[in-house]
Amino acid sequence: MSLLTSVDARTSHVDDFRVLLDDALHDFLRARQDLAPELAAELRGLILAGGKRIRPTFAWWGWRAARGSTRADAVVRAMVALEMLQCCALVHDDVMDRSATRRGKPSVHESFAARHRHRRWTGSARQYGDSAAILVGDLALAWADDALVTAGLPAEALSRAWGPWQAMRTEMIMGQHLDLLAVARREESLEHAVRVAALKTAAYTVERPLHLGAALAGADDDVLDCLRAYGHDIGIAFQLRDDLIGVFGDSSVTGKPVGEDLREGKRTPLMSIALSRAQDRPSAQRVLRRCLETGAVSDRTVDEVRSLLVELGAVAAVEEHIDQLSGSGLAALDRAVIDDEARHELVRLANRAVARTT
Amino acid sequence: MSLLTSVDARTSHVDDFRVLLDDALHDFLRARQDLAPELAAELRGLILAGGKRIRPTFAWWGWRAARGSTRADAVVRAMVALEMLQCCALVHDDVMDRSATRRGKPSVHESFAARHRHRRWTGSARQYGDSAAILVGDLALAWADDALVTAGLPAEALSRAWGPWQAMRTEMIMGQHLDLLAVARREESLEHAVRVAALKTAAYTVERPLHLGAALAGADDDVLDCLRAYGHDIGIAFQLRDDLIGVFGDSSVTGKPVGEDLREGKRTPLMSIALSRAQDRPSAQRVLRRCLETGAVSDRTVDEVRSLLVELGAVAAVEEHIDQLSGSGLAALDRAVIDDEARHELVRLANRAVARTT
Repeated sequence: MSLLTSVDARTSHVDDFRVLLDDALHDFLRARQDLAPELAAELRGLILAGGKRIRPTFAWWGWRAARGSTRADAVVRAMVALEMLQCCALVHDDVMDRSATRRGKPSVHESFAARHRHRRWTGSARQYGDSAAILVGDLALAWADDALVTAGLPAEALSRAWGPWQAMRTEMIMGQHLDLLAVARREESLEHAVRVAALKTAAYTVERPLHLGAALAGADDDVLDCLRAYGHDIGIAFQLRDDLIGVFGDSSVTGKPVGEDLREGKRTPLMSIALSRAQDRPSAQRVLRRCLETGAVSDRTVDEVRSLLVELGAVAAVEEHIDQLSGSGLAALDRAVIDDEARHELVRLANRAVARTT
Repeated sequence: MSLLTSVDARTSHVDDFRVLLDDALHDFLRARQDLAPELAAELRGLILAGGKRIRPTFAWWGWRAARGSTRADAVVRAMVALEMLQCCALVHDDVMDRSATRRGKPSVHESFAARHRHRRWTGSARQYGDSAAILVGDLALAWADDALVTAGLPAEALSRAWGPWQAMRTEMIMGQHLDLLAVARREESLEHAVRVAALKTAAYTVERPLHLGAALAGADDDVLDCLRAYGHDIGIAFQLRDDLIGVFGDSSVTGKPVGEDLREGKRTPLMSIALSRAQDRPSAQRVLRRCLETGAVSDRTVDEVRSLLVELGAVAAVEEHIDQLSGSGLAALDRAVIDDEARHELVRLANRAVARTT
């Protein structure tokens, strides 16, 4: 029997949301496994390989915060939509970035290309892999909507959720496009870097999931405003922390290469701040720009750029910004008239998001 | 003022569905033009460049057939979803097939790649073009769902439509994947070719749109069964006609290169039948197989393959099959207890679909 059926519909008291969500994810995929077996198997593999389930978690606590109290099972099933949407983003992102791995395993396009090579099929293995991965992402996106619409939510709840859901999908896609443009146009401005962070993480990862969850519960405008303000600030702080980890993270903890973001030449607010502070230091500017344009090619360059980021005060500036955002985000939460357990959990999630090391 | 507002909600009498649909498409895109301006502009360009609007048209007449009589304006807006879904299919298909043109203009990925080159941006123009096109397709797919859900349909109608809508999206994606596999695995069997045709055209283009339209109107099971049987048969006949046009079509009428499908080595039922009939003619087999594997490379090869298709009786067999399907499809329609005007129109659409030259 599915665990989900044991969620008591009269109460929102759920001890371990993650277990319930994973159960709902499995149910959802199992019911569809015969529809598009090869493509669905890749989705299942990606989901089983891990992931923090951040978006469903924020959506769940948004619902709890707004005192959502009925149909907890349907709400958990609706949260599957957020994880499916994220699968679409990851699979297509890996094709766009030509990333060979994801969650410690071959990325979806690599996995299909390897199958093509292994079976000695006709044509280009890379083209086949990319094409099949595009379809897997499309399937995840279509199924994301199916998950939300067929979750068993009351019609009014679904209708309230559609606004944030609509916005979340479009903002995610726009954020990806701005990311592409940043690389193509060699964007260096802090403004652009913050705009990407606002769309890709603040909105897509924290603010909109909270908004969606609270909308499902029928939250009033005051609660929505407070939760969204919290989500916006904590979301950006989360991304800024991510950027610091991408540069200074301990690879034995993160499981990623040392200084990965530098090697990829990622255009982050951290780098923008460093560049603007290096205005009268031509040699420092050169090192930073080369890092953005070609990626740091050696351990020595990684060390050099790291030192510069500290020396120029960019790291301190980002840390300060994280503190401010964390403060304003928690203050917004403080003003919200919401459920106590949810408030407690949202404080914990915020602290974890801004202070983590992985 | 939008034309759509003048659709009389008390009657389903609409003289020119195409005009209303185009109006709804424009309204939909106009309302979203500021959300993701660059990506949305490509979608608008693709839609304005033409297209037969086959899927919305079948869906509309499915609704009319089942005597849908209220909220005609909402139904027209819901049909926008089918055209947006088709945009996703076309844009992603062009990336997968590496097609340079679509509807007589550069394909979306080519258009983005050209912009990248023109503005002398950094990195690979091809990679940028492909990536941006993946995002445009994603946007079209997300917006397809938005169009259906926000059309203003009554909740029960939307809920009835979700089954066929869900199936249509998954079947479209599966059909594309089977198409990829056919090329990679050098599939030659008639069975595989017919299965692709059944998913890609019969289901996605005719049967499911009719199903969706009739479901919106609340059709009973008998009507749904008859309309779906009609849609299945006419859909396959439509695809078989398409295959004949792709090989023998007059390029001054179709606007496409002479023998385009042969040049692309497309694996159609027509080719499968020819191959199975060439079993004791090794030289004919060689010509056909080479055509499938490398595509016909010269006008002479196109002529040669065309002659073989006639000589081996494959063309006659396909024509006969079209006749049979057209007969059985119209017989199913005949059994349906539906609106007279819609019946008349569905007969006309069927005849046009199977007897057209472009």
